[in-house]
Amino acid sequence: MVAAGLPDTVASAADLPQRITIWEVGPRDGLQNEKSVVDLAVKLEFIDRLADAGLRVIEATSFVHPKWVPQLADAAELVDGLSRRDGVSYPVLVPNERGLDRALEAGMDHIAVFASATETFANRNLNRTLDSQFEMFEPVVTRARAEGLRVRGYLSMCYGDPWEGPVPAEQVIAVGRRLLDLGCSQLSLGDTIGVATPGQVEALIAGFGDPAVLAVHFHDTYGQALSNTMAALRCGVSTVDSSAGGLGGCPYAESATGNLATEDLVWMLDGLGLDHGVNLDKLAGTSAWMAAQLGRPSPSRVVQALRG
Amino acid sequence: MVAAGLPDTVASAADLPQRITIWEVGPRDGLQNEKSVVDLAVKLEFIDRLADAGLRVIEATSFVHPKWVPQLADAAELVDGLSRRDGVSYPVLVPNERGLDRALEAGMDHIAVFASATETFANRNLNRTLDSQFEMFEPVVTRARAEGLRVRGYLSMCYGDPWEGPVPAEQVIAVGRRLLDLGCSQLSLGDTIGVATPGQVEALIAGFGDPAVLAVHFHDTYGQALSNTMAALRCGVSTVDSSAGGLGGCPYAESATGNLATEDLVWMLDGLGLDHGVNLDKLAGTSAWMAAQLGRPSPSRVVQALRG
Repeated sequence: MVAAGLPDTVASAADLPQRITIWEVGPRDGLQNEKSVVDLAVKLEFIDRLADAGLRVIEATSFVHPKWVPQLADAAELVDGLSRRDGVSYPVLVPNERGLDRALEAGMDHIAVFASATETFANRNLNRTLDSQFEMFEPVVTRARAEGLRVRGYLSMCYGDPWEGPVPAEQVIAVGRRLLDLGCSQLSLGDTIGVATPGQVEALIAGFGDPAVLAVHFHDTYGQALSNTMAALRCGVSTVDSSAGGLGGCPYAESATGNLATEDLVWMLDGLGLDHGVNLDKLAGTSAWMAAQLGRPSPSRVVQALRG
Repeated sequence: MVAAGLPDTVASAADLPQRITIWEVGPRDGLQNEKSVVDLAVKLEFIDRLADAGLRVIEATSFVHPKWVPQLADAAELVDGLSRRDGVSYPVLVPNERGLDRALEAGMDHIAVFASATETFANRNLNRTLDSQFEMFEPVVTRARAEGLRVRGYLSMCYGDPWEGPVPAEQVIAVGRRLLDLGCSQLSLGDTIGVATPGQVEALIAGFGDPAVLAVHFHDTYGQALSNTMAALRCGVSTVDSSAGGLGGCPYAESATGNLATEDLVWMLDGLGLDHGVNLDKLAGTSAWMAAQLGRPSPSRVVQALRG
């Protein structure tokens, strides 16, 4: 019995972006949602294994106040301990100016800020209004750019919000454009609660008009993440956020909010013949190892199938 | 906090088939893969709840010899006990002439035959060659059609085969055309081991040329089922096989081969504004109930999120 092979690649894939950048969020978006705090040494090994598997953008941690995210309280030690590799970027999340100070002290060259597309989530997550959240980002983005850093803008609740319901695309586009105008070089459109379907994805991306500055960030809460990602690729988006092994939420809890698993994405990209640079076997081995550290199975279908 | 709403439907969905037929395979394809035999009364309640949730095609059982599939040894009792509803079809799988005799005795009006697209699987599953498997189907389809029955043809291993690897589309199309020429009114293209990706799906469907006679049947082994289904809808296919709660394989075993979960499909179709007739809450409740009967959680993301 030979390994289950991938079918031949076909011509229709020629219409898609030929080179995909996978923005790996597991160490930050994944681990910040873990109930337990993962040891620094395990985090460092995790990141190094991800780089070894071929990932070229690995969001390493967040310089958020430890009171809010104790899981990432070791951010300074972590970036200090990174075995930085040539050709690999290790962006960090920076919520405010104090976070930027810490990121600059640590010598980081790539950061991300986090915004909300809805009033209610801006209020609940950032204690700001939809409008006043920009007072928080503006000095961060401006100073970071002046220091020569690249800045990504995360935009959350782009399709649905747990309190407001569906989110109008015009509202998302207006907030997103402000982030780009501030100086963000990339905007990651987040489906934070995982409700989107392909028609909405295509409408939102078309509404922005320039897929080259966009990334997509889907959660698999309702099993829609990969299908939505494919819709985004069809629209010309070539940067996709995902999390090794689907880290980022317990799939067996009521509020299941796991990220798209990097392995499931890689399987699809391999089938489509799109270049991404990741070795699937190494990656699945890393996720299986991480699942063992966390003491529960990976929710990634590919990890289950290859390493279950 | 309001329920997480679906975003508004957008215009691009207008290019898709507006009415989707969901062919529910849980009671047959799902339960035949369970290690334990489910009680007849539970099966009957399951099927009746599925009809109550709005499903209009429910594959009820298989008239296969009990030696091969002991889980469905109660096929005759089951179809005898069905509370048949107007407007609901209850097709049954029929492997050979003896199975057809039993289906006719039971008064069934809709059957399915099962073929392989590859030599090795024809040999292993049917003990036939790719060519000689037709000697088995031909009298079944011919007699069934003469008796006025509708006949579906299942074609398995359409994208990859565990022994042969990738399967050439021309081979799948040649075998599939023979099933249609025999008198099958519909051909269900099965990705039995779940390896396909959207480019292959589109190439295969385009190769057949007539999406109206096709159905798609994806397994979620590598997390690709919904994305592939979306690709098929884009090609004009309007009949989709799925299994309530993703029944059909243990997601935590090495050979994970669960079907596309009907709930995850319904979530996407609702988001796209496509008509299908199923009430998602009732369906998820049914799958949660069935999961409790089986003593393990449903692998459907939607069922986990709504009922986890």
